[in-house]
Amino acid sequence: MKIFIWGMGLIGASLALALRDKGHQISGAVRSAKSRETLARMGFDRVTSDESEALKMLRDCDMLALGLNVNDCFRIMDLVLADEALAKQLVLFDMCSTKAEICQYAEQQHAGANFVGTHPMAGKEKQGPEAAEAALFAGQTVFITPRPGAEDATEKVRTLWQSVGALTVPIDAAVHDRTMAYVSHGLHLTACLISNLSAEVFDATLPVSPVAGSYRDMTRVAMSSGEMWQSITDSNRENIAAWLTQLSERSAKLAEEIRDGRANVRKLFADAELIRGKFMRT
Amino acid sequence: MKIFIWGMGLIGASLALALRDKGHQISGAVRSAKSRETLARMGFDRVTSDESEALKMLRDCDMLALGLNVNDCFRIMDLVLADEALAKQLVLFDMCSTKAEICQYAEQQHAGANFVGTHPMAGKEKQGPEAAEAALFAGQTVFITPRPGAEDATEKVRTLWQSVGALTVPIDAAVHDRTMAYVSHGLHLTACLISNLSAEVFDATLPVSPVAGSYRDMTRVAMSSGEMWQSITDSNRENIAAWLTQLSERSAKLAEEIRDGRANVRKLFADAELIRGKFMRT
Repeated sequence: MKIFIWGMGLIGASLALALRDKGHQISGAVRSAKSRETLARMGFDRVTSDESEALKMLRDCDMLALGLNVNDCFRIMDLVLADEALAKQLVLFDMCSTKAEICQYAEQQHAGANFVGTHPMAGKEKQGPEAAEAALFAGQTVFITPRPGAEDATEKVRTLWQSVGALTVPIDAAVHDRTMAYVSHGLHLTACLISNLSAEVFDATLPVSPVAGSYRDMTRVAMSSGEMWQSITDSNRENIAAWLTQLSERSAKLAEEIRDGRANVRKLFADAELIRGKFMRT
Repeated sequence: MKIFIWGMGLIGASLALALRDKGHQISGAVRSAKSRETLARMGFDRVTSDESEALKMLRDCDMLALGLNVNDCFRIMDLVLADEALAKQLVLFDMCSTKAEICQYAEQQHAGANFVGTHPMAGKEKQGPEAAEAALFAGQTVFITPRPGAEDATEKVRTLWQSVGALTVPIDAAVHDRTMAYVSHGLHLTACLISNLSAEVFDATLPVSPVAGSYRDMTRVAMSSGEMWQSITDSNRENIAAWLTQLSERSAKLAEEIRDGRANVRKLFADAELIRGKFMRT
């Protein structure tokens, strides 16, 4: 197949590598000249930074993968789907971390398009095509939001993800977004809060760092792209705010119990081990 | 030297392995028959579970390392140091994660003893002597709380830690405990809160787990010993409660900003990356 990838950062470029390995023809669009050069070194020479050129290149493609933040997805969907021939010919899917907003946008603005929402559960704290790996999706979950009337497109997108080793799982967009707030989105923001709070005890005169594995692990994802997380946060506001509010209430309650000497820390850890085991087992 | 290790869990048994490699004679005390058997298989056959027997074995030892929770340290210090000959002959040190409480106890109850507070910054989410490693302390920081009048004992303990590859760093006990609350203790409790909150979205019917690297890393230390963390929390109440209160306030504020669509997530990540870089560099 001829597959166009609009937005070739970590996720888009990893998909490009994986699909090229399967024999597909890849072309794409990126914003910066630096990314274009990186991709050229990786052997992707049909990558443009010109949107009119991209629209021309799309004319002989079968699929369009959007490797963009959600707001950029809206703009590119509008641009591409304004062309009736492209709207008819292309199966397109996004790879954003939130699903309710984009699925609703597609439904309301582009009801007839062959759009499918997907979310590959893969990532790194590094960004850009230089961090891409062909094996990034192997064995990883890819959530797909089913859409009545788009069964054929959904089947094509599912087959494509499975061909690169992903485990595809259908999920309702609203359930997806709430779940992600609780197991990923809220956690990323908390990693930042933890890191920022640690500034209060930084002492440049200490000959070694006082941090160990817990700090390293619990702040790792604070190294992710702030640009991307601004977009994810804006797109999943209510769920993330609800999670942060619960975290706030529970940490305030725990602080009070600790001050009073009546915190049951044994139970806190026992409960945590139990629920973590359930999530890590499946 | 003849070194007695009272409490041979992960930390105590790792120290035993490291010191035996350096040619020291190791004996020790543990509570359970299971630990005694594990240690016997590791070649430590002078390990008792009988406290009177332990006191007898201590008579020809030079040093006593306490691999116990802080409250058990108090009890064993009282027991051992009640014997004037032992109090004079032994250099003793603890390895607890909090330092203010035990240093104050030693000062008030056993002012004349050769006690030194230490905190090896090494650990795992696994417990017990079966998880021990001779190399656990190699290249790791060990904090030592200097004590006026105990310079000779401090020097001996510092030399011992350095001999197993640790980087020893003198630190004031109060500064130590506040710093640890901000870079370790509060984080461990937060890992539990995060894990426990995730229970709200657990769905046993989902064919794969919805969690990825952020969840794995940010809940890892929730697998630690609840017993140990109960003791650490009780021993560093004010600092940990202060940290949790700040986390509560900041997460509530962020939730409000997100709901209002005015959260500056870009800045949150940029700040976090900067401070994390400072801690991880040194």
